[in-house]
Amino acid sequence: MKVGFIGLGRMGAAMAQNLVAAGHEVTVWNRSPDKAGPLVAAGATLAASPVEAAQGEVVMSMLADDHALAAVTFGADGITGGPALHVSHSTIGVAMAERLAAEPGAGGFVSAPVFGRPAAAEAAHLFVVAAGATAHLDRCAPLFEAIGQRTFRVGDTPSAANLVKLSGNFMIMAAVEAMAEAMTLADKGGVDRRTLLDVLTGTLFDAPIYKTYGDFLVEDRFRPAGFTAPLGLKDMGLVDAAATASRVPMPLLGIVRDHLRSAIATEGEDVDWAAAGLAVRRGAGLS
Amino acid sequence: MKVGFIGLGRMGAAMAQNLVAAGHEVTVWNRSPDKAGPLVAAGATLAASPVEAAQGEVVMSMLADDHALAAVTFGADGITGGPALHVSHSTIGVAMAERLAAEPGAGGFVSAPVFGRPAAAEAAHLFVVAAGATAHLDRCAPLFEAIGQRTFRVGDTPSAANLVKLSGNFMIMAAVEAMAEAMTLADKGGVDRRTLLDVLTGTLFDAPIYKTYGDFLVEDRFRPAGFTAPLGLKDMGLVDAAATASRVPMPLLGIVRDHLRSAIATEGEDVDWAAAGLAVRRGAGLS
Amino acid sequence: MKVGFIGLGRMGAAMAQNLVAAGHEVTVWNRSPDKAGPLVAAGATLAASPVEAAQGEVVMSMLADDHALAAVTFGADGITGGPALHVSHSTIGVAMAERLAAEPGAGGFVSAPVFGRPAAAEAAHLFVVAAGATAHLDRCAPLFEAIGQRTFRVGDTPSAANLVKLSGNFMIMAAVEAMAEAMTLADKGGVDRRTLLDVLTGTLFDAPIYKTYGDFLVEDRFRPAGFTAPLGLKDMGLVDAAATASRVPMPLLGIVRDHLRSAIATEGEDVDWAAAGLAVRRGAGLS
Amino acid sequence: MKVGFIGLGRMGAAMAQNLVAAGHEVTVWNRSPDKAGPLVAAGATLAASPVEAAQGEVVMSMLADDHALAAVTFGADGITGGPALHVSHSTIGVAMAERLAAEPGAGGFVSAPVFGRPAAAEAAHLFVVAAGATAHLDRCAPLFEAIGQRTFRVGDTPSAANLVKLSGNFMIMAAVEAMAEAMTLADKGGVDRRTLLDVLTGTLFDAPIYKTYGDFLVEDRFRPAGFTAPLGLKDMGLVDAAATASRVPMPLLGIVRDHLRSAIATEGEDVDWAAAGLAVRRGAGLS
Repeated sequence: MKVGFIGLGRMGAAMAQNLVAAGHEVTVWNRSPDKAGPLVAAGATLAASPVEAAQGEVVMSMLADDHALAAVTFGADGITGGPALHVSHSTIGVAMAERLAAEPGAGGFVSAPVFGRPAAAEAAHLFVVAAGATAHLDRCAPLFEAIGQRTFRVGDTPSAANLVKLSGNFMIMAAVEAMAEAMTLADKGGVDRRTLLDVLTGTLFDAPIYKTYGDFLVEDRFRPAGFTAPLGLKDMGLVDAAATASRVPMPLLGIVRDHLRSAIATEGEDVDWAAAGLAVRRGAGLS
Repeated sequence: MKVGFIGLGRMGAAMAQNLVAAGHEVTVWNRSPDKAGPLVAAGATLAASPVEAAQGEVVMSMLADDHALAAVTFGADGITGGPALHVSHSTIGVAMAERLAAEPGAGGFVSAPVFGRPAAAEAAHLFVVAAGATAHLDRCAPLFEAIGQRTFRVGDTPSAANLVKLSGNFMIMAAVEAMAEAMTLADKGGVDRRTLLDVLTGTLFDAPIYKTYGDFLVEDRFRPAGFTAPLGLKDMGLVDAAATASRVPMPLLGIVRDHLRSAIATEGEDVDWAAAGLAVRRGAGLS
Repeated sequence: MKVGFIGLGRMGAAMAQNLVAAGHEVTVWNRSPDKAGPLVAAGATLAASPVEAAQGEVVMSMLADDHALAAVTFGADGITGGPALHVSHSTIGVAMAERLAAEPGAGGFVSAPVFGRPAAAEAAHLFVVAAGATAHLDRCAPLFEAIGQRTFRVGDTPSAANLVKLSGNFMIMAAVEAMAEAMTLADKGGVDRRTLLDVLTGTLFDAPIYKTYGDFLVEDRFRPAGFTAPLGLKDMGLVDAAATASRVPMPLLGIVRDHLRSAIATEGEDVDWAAAGLAVRRGAGLS
Repeated sequence: MKVGFIGLGRMGAAMAQNLVAAGHEVTVWNRSPDKAGPLVAAGATLAASPVEAAQGEVVMSMLADDHALAAVTFGADGITGGPALHVSHSTIGVAMAERLAAEPGAGGFVSAPVFGRPAAAEAAHLFVVAAGATAHLDRCAPLFEAIGQRTFRVGDTPSAANLVKLSGNFMIMAAVEAMAEAMTLADKGGVDRRTLLDVLTGTLFDAPIYKTYGDFLVEDRFRPAGFTAPLGLKDMGLVDAAATASRVPMPLLGIVRDHLRSAIATEGEDVDWAAAGLAVRRGAGLS
């Protein structure tokens, strides 16, 4: 398929590479064009503007935040100026997704945020959560197959996919908070953190998330960041905005946001978002 | 092996049945002796007092709380009056476990709380978390095999096993809270709770706990209780006591305890502890 | 003094009346010009645009939020098009105050948010918290005297005044939360809420805030709203934005925001922000 | 009046001195009799046991906790062995007060906890919150006048007074938490803590509690402790026990307890309970 890809950060570059590898005809664009080098070497074409990347059947975007996505979407040079179906993979707010659905351009709009850290993107093991018109989702199916291990369709309102994605990110941080509190209690009570984690993941908590993040916490390994604390705080801010709009109290979200702020304040802007767990540990006088 | 079993509630009765089924020579005792009927029918002997059940190699106990366990352990008629190794499966406080380890009776003491709801006890699928002297744990191995699917050894300080067990129960409630907040956000934002749960358990949260409790939450099914909210609140109180003693801030624990109180206040004493999630839902104006 | 006043809601209209009463030559503007009737009757002049009201020495503004203030400030017809010193009394965000200070127009900028509900505005009993250049603050002194009982100068960075104002609003909600929790505990424990409030305000909590809001809570009196819950939630959102920007964990703020959301979800958009306390009460099963 | 006084810590000794100064015939008892020296020098008589101090009309007690009070109350040598009306000033739990009311001894029981730090006790400026039979309260009136500035009667159920006292202590900690969060936000935003405090106490928060504790926070002055963090944590544990018994969610109480634990963990056992505010500050990366 003739497809554009906009946004070549660690996640986006890996996704675009998998599209090329799957045989699609890929045109890429990035604000800093040097990031496109490896993709062009692999056979992709470099576009001069977002709208140029939106001339095919589909154009996929993977940007850092609402603002960056808006910048490549709207305006004369933006995605909406081309005929392609816009598929947004970015983790954006519900309100932004609603705006994108309301002003979709000629080709239509699908929201398809993904779960997975950079290593999963490289391995084409992402989970894709997609929402939009059925015909649009059908058209994207081979593209989602090229970048992920499984696609979930969650309805025809694009922003629903973003709400699910944001909920999932919140759930990850909730699990980090829970583990951090339990590990700190265990540690101060004389039980090794690794021992606790082994029991938890060997019994009721036998899920990837507990193993991945549990290891980070046991080893106090928060650098280099797979996903930085400020980005995590941004995402949790999007969950908070949705909760405010829907009038939903979310006390656990409040804790998570507090601990991300604390982690950034005490550890710096470059730590992984799992360092929220370090705030728990420091609060108990451990270092 | 000649083994006693004290405490024939839903969990204890199922565990004792599995010991009988595994060929052990079992003597049982319960405050209300009528609970022993099915076990006696299956071949167990009924003791007239706890100490009578503590005449074999090992005596296992499964009681409701610290108080009930103390009542069968200490004193002339208590477990510590017999020669058996006392293996405590109850979910008790860390301080109580320390007292039991300090006053073990002639046979010694092992703490071996279990993870699993009544159905898992019946199916001999419990997880056993055991701590105590290695020789003691070795002696108990065939008994643990008869009641559970896997045993974790977490050191030679008995109370360590209780700290792990309490941490695990806290983690369950933390997952319930996280799901309840995410589901409420999704629901008010137009995403079906079942859809959200399917995505979560199909991706990063592929663990039994999310499936079991997720179903309760999606269906608002909190009766009949597998484990009642007041018992859950008692357990979370034990976690809180350990956190106070160790000077560990646990804000997520605070939320969980609040929501258990709220669930009991609004729904009654007989709901499942998962009804803590209902407090989240009601706080957002849903019913 | 020749002074403009923009924004004639309940607060602004009362403040403008007090300026007229103090003998100042007042020109007013409001988006719905009919609100200006009583002021014109009292001797004020009606301007046709914000910039027309900014032709004197000083122009004061009292708008609902950041957005409304930006709309009257910037652009050809806006305040910054005139020669007057702009004094902003609105409760706005720190970032917005920083922008106003950076783009002040010819006359300069002072931030001077106020404490007090509409009745205090009418009685010229507001507290004014002002920040800006000393010469500017000196020039405003007689105006502040006309609308308030006391002025606090908090430095020469205008946004500092907004941070203090937002902190104060947070403190009010914190006191409401504390009283609501204590009253609910007392009530369920058999102690009349009025009795508790009398002891508290007769001893250590002898401050206006506890008397005013304590009465609302004891009497469950949340309508008509002096300050609505959605406006309160908006303000607490501004505090949250400042806390996020400064990386400050504020768990009590999180509770307050949750309870405002809950109050709106269960009681409606028109309740007083003190209804946050009702969320506490309902969570305990009281109605 | 012939009156006994049991418990001569900083608070009790000051109260007993004021009774002597008011002309009452005072018999004192303390576990470490050397503490009684100054009182005996002032004219008090030293008793050899609690029951000896309970031979007059009234015996007042001021002990550290439930356990210490039970030790001097019950048993052959205890207060209940004498004919005196027992007036308990200690900060004890609701359940303990209920037990004291149920087993009052011959003279009856009044609960009369006090508000005020040691300096207030010395100045006879305590606030007395009393509950019990009217005839009993009438008899105590001159004694309460000798130790305090004002007495509040809160009904005829003694434990009601304890619930009010515990609620008040919780309210103090809530105010500390609110100030600490606001001050940290202000500080990181460039507003001096003293400036913020001056505005708050000069406007809506013109109450002794904000001045006293606000000074501690502004100056980071937490030693020597007027009331230590572990004692504060003990009191907040009593509030928590009452909330658990009554099924009342108290999220702000949860925060306060967490921050007291954190303060003790990081600062040591000897800091003032106001150091809970330091936990807020440290969580934001300030020291």
